[in-house]
Amino acid sequence: METVSTTKAFGGWQGVYRHTSTATGTEMSFSVYVPPHAEGATLPVVWYLSGLTCTHANVTEKGEFRAACAELGLIFVAPDTSPRGEGVADDPSGAYDFGLGAGFYVDATEEPFARHYRMWSYVTEELPALIATHFPADMARQSIMGHSMGGHGALTIGLRLSDRFKAISGFAPIVAPSQVPWGEKALAGYLGADRKLWAKHDAVTLIEDGARVPALLIDQGEADPFLEEQLRPGLLEAACAKASIPLTLRLQPGYDHSYYFISTFMADHLRWHATRLT
Amino acid sequence: METVSTTKAFGGWQGVYRHTSTATGTEMSFSVYVPPHAEGATLPVVWYLSGLTCTHANVTEKGEFRAACAELGLIFVAPDTSPRGEGVADDPSGAYDFGLGAGFYVDATEEPFARHYRMWSYVTEELPALIATHFPADMARQSIMGHSMGGHGALTIGLRLSDRFKAISGFAPIVAPSQVPWGEKALAGYLGADRKLWAKHDAVTLIEDGARVPALLIDQGEADPFLEEQLRPGLLEAACAKASIPLTLRLQPGYDHSYYFISTFMADHLRWHATRLT
Repeated sequence: METVSTTKAFGGWQGVYRHTSTATGTEMSFSVYVPPHAEGATLPVVWYLSGLTCTHANVTEKGEFRAACAELGLIFVAPDTSPRGEGVADDPSGAYDFGLGAGFYVDATEEPFARHYRMWSYVTEELPALIATHFPADMARQSIMGHSMGGHGALTIGLRLSDRFKAISGFAPIVAPSQVPWGEKALAGYLGADRKLWAKHDAVTLIEDGARVPALLIDQGEADPFLEEQLRPGLLEAACAKASIPLTLRLQPGYDHSYYFISTFMADHLRWHATRLT
Repeated sequence: METVSTTKAFGGWQGVYRHTSTATGTEMSFSVYVPPHAEGATLPVVWYLSGLTCTHANVTEKGEFRAACAELGLIFVAPDTSPRGEGVADDPSGAYDFGLGAGFYVDATEEPFARHYRMWSYVTEELPALIATHFPADMARQSIMGHSMGGHGALTIGLRLSDRFKAISGFAPIVAPSQVPWGEKALAGYLGADRKLWAKHDAVTLIEDGARVPALLIDQGEADPFLEEQLRPGLLEAACAKASIPLTLRLQPGYDHSYYFISTFMADHLRWHATRLT
């Protein structure tokens, strides 16, 4: 693992790192904020999964998470959203919603994506091992959050690895990729046409199929241009109601899909995570 | 004035605007955050002047000022750092420290800069008039802050217009441009070789020449690569001591010159301004 940069912020250190990933077969970059802490202490870890087109840099620069992480004593990890580099297949038309910047947190089985698009393995196995090794992380206390496509990642990973993640939250997440255009394109492209194979990468289907977690927190802007067609939080609301999963779904009037929205509610989410982690 | 975008954030609205400036003879962009407020209320205005290479966008995206402005009820205005566009002269070698992105908040008298580089007039006259007209601003309650070259702008404007600005603060400001390479290049380039003409654009000289303000707040990172050669806060410290201006100069161990540093201390500065504005 190579250190790209470390910068002091809010008493702790914002780092950016690079390594050669076995999972994706590419160089991968990620960022980690380590808050001020006592020598020798280990700290809970919050994973933040980003949305379409993003790298680790978007939330690192615009997420406004460091003040709360410093106050609450949380490590904040932000991976990239896809493999990148020479030889990594992309959407044939270069569309923003598939291929580069749009890994959807699955292990692809379809060609030409199966070789590098292994974001599930990367985010759930390889990167956690790296974090455990190189940072003062208490891996018994982890939680996960994400935005849009990254909200989909946080929900599906959190639901399937519910022993690992003590809290799950989302900003404008894709909750039912099998039922919306972004998700249908991505899951068909990475996993093939058989919709049965999509089930474990769809939060609503996972809940319908029996996945359970103690609670979920979702913020969704009402002025989000993707609300009706791509995000559809009502589908998650219905599934949670049926499954008796306590869902706090906050529809936020006037807010859009941007980091202005995310940063507004970031500290709230981190506090919610902290009560479940500390 | 044209609205480029308005986005809800922390209960208020982050706007970006564009207009044709009489002062600079160019299109100019700026950003304004208006916090949540009672219908009909007018609010104090904090001016933020940016550093070399920046536009309004840097602090708008990375400054982490909105949470505190929303809490404290402050309007936050971020102008650009120079005129831009076709026909605007730049540094002959394209250097980052002169010309585009480096207006140094002066009205240039030297050719080919005199035509467009009129950032003093723009920031102290034209833009305030626009703010007073289009926003719920209480122009009797204004303060000013800035970073690096923008810290120089905040200090010189605040010292010269001490009736207008109730508080002045800086993040790693250039305090004595006449005595450091960035400043010598810029002031010679915009104002000519006669150093007497630089005096009113040098904070330390202004104080030596009798300018007085009730207090100053400066944060300076000790790991700032520009500290020794370009920033030299000790010169301001000496001038303030001699002039009996209460200066709070905080040397912050480990911090650099970036927005990671600025964002860490932004809320502190805004609170300090608010006590003087409200």
